[in-house]
Amino acid sequence: MTTYNFFELLHKHDSSKARAGILHTDHGDIETPVFMPVGTQATVKTLSPRDLKEVGARIILGNTYHLYLRPGHQLITEFGGLHRFMSWDGPILTDSGGYQVFSLQDLRKIDDEGISFRSHWDGSAHRFTPASVLDIQRHLGSDIMMVLDECAPYPCSHEYARKSNEMTVRWAEQAKKMYDHTESFFNHRQFLFAIVQGSIYRDIRRESVEALTGLDFPGYAIGGLAVGESKEEMYAVTDLCTDLLPEKKPRYLMGVGMPEDILESIERGVDMFDCVIPTRNARNGTVFTRKGKMVLKAARFRDDQKPIDADCNCYTCRNFSRGYLRHLYNTNEILGLHLATIHNVYFYLWLVDSARDHILNDTFGNWKKQILEELKKTIIH
Amino acid sequence: MTTYNFFELLHKHDSSKARAGILHTDHGDIETPVFMPVGTQATVKTLSPRDLKEVGARIILGNTYHLYLRPGHQLITEFGGLHRFMSWDGPILTDSGGYQVFSLQDLRKIDDEGISFRSHWDGSAHRFTPASVLDIQRHLGSDIMMVLDECAPYPCSHEYARKSNEMTVRWAEQAKKMYDHTESFFNHRQFLFAIVQGSIYRDIRRESVEALTGLDFPGYAIGGLAVGESKEEMYAVTDLCTDLLPEKKPRYLMGVGMPEDILESIERGVDMFDCVIPTRNARNGTVFTRKGKMVLKAARFRDDQKPIDADCNCYTCRNFSRGYLRHLYNTNEILGLHLATIHNVYFYLWLVDSARDHILNDTFGNWKKQILEELKKTIIH
Repeated sequence: MTTYNFFELLHKHDSSKARAGILHTDHGDIETPVFMPVGTQATVKTLSPRDLKEVGARIILGNTYHLYLRPGHQLITEFGGLHRFMSWDGPILTDSGGYQVFSLQDLRKIDDEGISFRSHWDGSAHRFTPASVLDIQRHLGSDIMMVLDECAPYPCSHEYARKSNEMTVRWAEQAKKMYDHTESFFNHRQFLFAIVQGSIYRDIRRESVEALTGLDFPGYAIGGLAVGESKEEMYAVTDLCTDLLPEKKPRYLMGVGMPEDILESIERGVDMFDCVIPTRNARNGTVFTRKGKMVLKAARFRDDQKPIDADCNCYTCRNFSRGYLRHLYNTNEILGLHLATIHNVYFYLWLVDSARDHILNDTFGNWKKQILEELKKTIIH
Repeated sequence: MTTYNFFELLHKHDSSKARAGILHTDHGDIETPVFMPVGTQATVKTLSPRDLKEVGARIILGNTYHLYLRPGHQLITEFGGLHRFMSWDGPILTDSGGYQVFSLQDLRKIDDEGISFRSHWDGSAHRFTPASVLDIQRHLGSDIMMVLDECAPYPCSHEYARKSNEMTVRWAEQAKKMYDHTESFFNHRQFLFAIVQGSIYRDIRRESVEALTGLDFPGYAIGGLAVGESKEEMYAVTDLCTDLLPEKKPRYLMGVGMPEDILESIERGVDMFDCVIPTRNARNGTVFTRKGKMVLKAARFRDDQKPIDADCNCYTCRNFSRGYLRHLYNTNEILGLHLATIHNVYFYLWLVDSARDHILNDTFGNWKKQILEELKKTIIH
């Protein structure tokens, strides 16, 4: 197992921390900055693998918690791993499951060695440890695996954040040791990322980065953000973390976010993003455009023959009108969810692709400023 | 407006009434026998137009009742007709709306001139007449339109069936007169089909055919079947109707049915079919194969790595296992409905395409016998 050449830093923007690179995985290269559509239960909701290819998805995310419960990681191994199970031959990142388990509130109990919890759908008892979570992801065969961490609640005290982070660092040590001494079940490399925690406390974030980079992981995630803190705090903590993280390792900002958050974070040196917003909003009937958001159910779209976004080249915008999409939502037709999801994921990938182009051309700053102005508009809701 | 060359009878099977032909429409040729997937609300549920092309759909069906209520036929005209509204450039058949309105039970009242009814979703009052239903379909721009008829309930008395059929024939006369004196809103031909009624009563079916064929419609549907009568009665009435209907006009058996019903009816000289079974069953998790039906939710498919049907060449069977599809149903993922619908519609189109090939080669009889034996099996439920 080697991380040689995993991440290639191609270009640094001349007037910000923004960067363009490539992640080399055995399921294909991933140009960064990249957005990873979320495929919670071995499917990016409403999209088939060929839809994902078409919208330009380069890597997708799977949720370890959900896949562990249903259909179970051993079953997925029997099917030849998550790639073959869901018929997606591109790269996959799996999360640690920690975030979902911590969200269970009354159903989970944390101790120094791990988390005991009950399944949200059948109440059965389970336990995640740094070792078991790595083992599950080994079974799934994801290209990028995440260490078990605690995503501290917001707000939390300095004391809570410090202790929580110390535990997260200990868990990362345990995971890294196991990672270095176990082999993949599959004939492809699996890279392990650590997760920087510390809530909004600068000193703890610094401690976290220092401890984790000392362990020399293939990549680093910034966790514990987009959990209720202000945008300013989120951007500031991201800024601090990317100042401290090693330049030659990829940085992944977990669970972020809105288009403007992604641009602000790219400018601060983040390479990787995931978020349910484009897919979930699509199913709620909200779509993103270069000129703001649009709520497709609105009555004023009834006779609107224009596409969602005339400048968009996705299948939905090339073939369907706002009026037709509004009709599909109005009549609860599944095709509406599918077409809006295609558009939103395409839009997010267009956003990071464009950012990459502008980073490579050193035009990122002006482009970002202009796009942010446009994104603030809301066409109708 | 001319019906010249609309239907071309290519070949009659040498040992049954089965036939192969072509319907020439301005949106493309339709090889018969043909199955028409049902696109109730301007979408074949869960499928995009490109999915429909891929599974081999040659013509789809739209429901006048539903489209009249939502989004409304005038709106669809503003969008350039149903083809452009839903971005389907192949042929479309619209029904008369009569079947849906009669299903409303307490919400409708029939008289000699038409049917007054209340909308099933907002209670608003409406009225369908032979003229208004034709006008709605003119607005929709379907390639094949249906006259308003009464689909008599089953069972019904001979007296009820006779009076109902007399009214249906009068309505057909009115519709035909209007059809001959009005022009399409669009630059393509719209053909009008009459509907043979008469319940299970041979004499009334005969009267119906005689009266309607005297009016020289471009095509004829057989209605009022698959409403509760036995399979034997359904086949016998179909047999009688196709004996009486003119050879050079297409015959459409409405709302039928199961794969075995389609084969039996093709053998009896039917050219066109529509039914919600492949799409509805798919959404319930039941799929058709050459070796019987399969209920995908069944626990025994949990670790089954085989496709639904190893002999099927649809996107679903080429890429996904029963175990994965079972997982999608188990976790209520929309992709499961989409993939099963692709398979079922592909299967129905494979069935009529294969029937056509065997008719053209005069091998239909043996092939049908063999397929029917296989179809009787149920793999698991």
